[in-house]
Amino acid sequence: MKQALLLIAMALMSANGVAAEEPIQPVERPKHLDAGKVELGKQLFFDARLSKSGWISCNSCHNLSRGGTDNLVSSIGHGWAQGPINAPTVLNSSYNVAQFWDGRAADLKAQAGGPIANPGEMASTHELAVKVLQTIPGYVQEFEKVYGKGPVTIDHATDAIAEFERTLVTPDSRFDKWLKGDKNAINAQELAGYQLFKITGCVGCHNGPAVGGGTLQRMGSFNPYDTSNPSLGVAGISGQSIDRFRFKVPILRNIELTAPYFHDGAAKTLEAAVDTMVWVQLNRHFTPAGRDKVVAFLKTLTGKQPDFPLPQLPPSGPDTPAPQPFDSK
Amino acid sequence: MKQALLLIAMALMSANGVAAEEPIQPVERPKHLDAGKVELGKQLFFDARLSKSGWISCNSCHNLSRGGTDNLVSSIGHGWAQGPINAPTVLNSSYNVAQFWDGRAADLKAQAGGPIANPGEMASTHELAVKVLQTIPGYVQEFEKVYGKGPVTIDHATDAIAEFERTLVTPDSRFDKWLKGDKNAINAQELAGYQLFKITGCVGCHNGPAVGGGTLQRMGSFNPYDTSNPSLGVAGISGQSIDRFRFKVPILRNIELTAPYFHDGAAKTLEAAVDTMVWVQLNRHFTPAGRDKVVAFLKTLTGKQPDFPLPQLPPSGPDTPAPQPFDSK
Repeated sequence: MKQALLLIAMALMSANGVAAEEPIQPVERPKHLDAGKVELGKQLFFDARLSKSGWISCNSCHNLSRGGTDNLVSSIGHGWAQGPINAPTVLNSSYNVAQFWDGRAADLKAQAGGPIANPGEMASTHELAVKVLQTIPGYVQEFEKVYGKGPVTIDHATDAIAEFERTLVTPDSRFDKWLKGDKNAINAQELAGYQLFKITGCVGCHNGPAVGGGTLQRMGSFNPYDTSNPSLGVAGISGQSIDRFRFKVPILRNIELTAPYFHDGAAKTLEAAVDTMVWVQLNRHFTPAGRDKVVAFLKTLTGKQPDFPLPQLPPSGPDTPAPQPFDSK
Repeated sequence: MKQALLLIAMALMSANGVAAEEPIQPVERPKHLDAGKVELGKQLFFDARLSKSGWISCNSCHNLSRGGTDNLVSSIGHGWAQGPINAPTVLNSSYNVAQFWDGRAADLKAQAGGPIANPGEMASTHELAVKVLQTIPGYVQEFEKVYGKGPVTIDHATDAIAEFERTLVTPDSRFDKWLKGDKNAINAQELAGYQLFKITGCVGCHNGPAVGGGTLQRMGSFNPYDTSNPSLGVAGISGQSIDRFRFKVPILRNIELTAPYFHDGAAKTLEAAVDTMVWVQLNRHFTPAGRDKVVAFLKTLTGKQPDFPLPQLPPSGPDTPAPQPFDSK
């Protein structure tokens, strides 16, 4: 019975032109999103008033003009604080099994509240952020429209941000076109790179629609990964030595846009990242030609980037707390 | 002859529904811009790789989601440097007689090069900025399309940014609709505020399409302006004591979006700004009711904000110099 269902499913997928046996599936546009939440969340994502300084927004480090990252080794936070870890892309992050490199947030909504209140990031508090939003007449109106009468809450604010983030998928990459049956969408080298990506075992962790994000894995499962970055991964939460360097598998969608790579941002190029990964995770080396094929494949994963008008933010009201960029320096 | 031409001009304007005798003219969309330069300049305006840190773009302080300003007392620069002066709006800045508060840049192109190389702002150099652009394949292609074969230059980069900035006008405000003949576009209080704005003499400096920006004037022409901000205005360039506190008259278009006000960012609200200005510039006080009318009028000057898709930036190449956010700290 199970097998029969599977066969039917495969037949259906095949009918849609999707290569059913492939370990990577096309990115799909989300359905059933709340348009009001998305619009509100989009504004909040771009609004630096959620930070203490009034200068850092979600988009500062998860820049939607740059693959959803800041392209820095590690991010800059309040007072020019040096962040501890490379900012992961927000693109396709709704596919992640959990959020943050160590998976400590269960979902996008739980994640969104973190940086706002992190002293080394946006350095606000949930109380202050809510007070700011509550005193901006344009937001009060929008929150009421979306969540009904009542005070603005951090729960609603992060809910709206998460709903906006669900829209940040990047469909229609050349690879997805190939998956859906357009055999000319990628060239022979790129296809050879994909075959190599599969038979080498990269696909063991980097699979599913996001080509990663589905599991937490040890960085250096075969050979030790050498880094000066002190992040412990899941061990920082569990305290278990077995979880040392266990990180969420990064999403490889749009990977050509999101250098530098790894949790420590140590790999400056895709070539360097691929060379390191096959050694520490798979205990082998690619030839330069083989590595170039894999890199060529990875570049076919760049999909349609966020495409919406630059958000316009409502002005502060007379009672909106003034930003405090310099008081703690 | 001259008078005859003037009469014809006035007749033409009247035919267009424009109140020809008014000291403020509607904002008009620019014509004859180079679309290629505009697109390239738009990307550069949003590209933080023009800064040493890779984190500060033109849009960081002239935020097009927030009236073309950062809504801070003074801006944040490289290493969290505290800026010396309030960031003026970039909206409608093509109408300015000169750029910067002290008018030290003749035009938008000359201005654009300043912050890139200012150690307290973007902290790059023109040489480094060019090297960055020159090693980003997507930009090399675009520069060649727009400026022809040859190396990328800072001259071309600032030319493109300036061309983009010329698009940043904000037409179709309620006040402009009124100017063009829609008598219901503003209400009785707003109209009364405009009359007061004229008869009090505000309009002596705040006139023209941008409602300011046309001249450099002394802040405190009647009564001294008290501030702890050390900026000298034009005197900082000329060394002449007569130029002390001579600043470019701020543009009042979209003024409800660009708090706080004045070169020192000391006025938190429009009400406070109006109260101060009528005293120091015009040696009088408004009644609270009169001031509220003027504020109501000022809020009719908010026009159509920038409306374009969030720019997408080309990825760095293998030889692009890495950003250096932390090396000088």
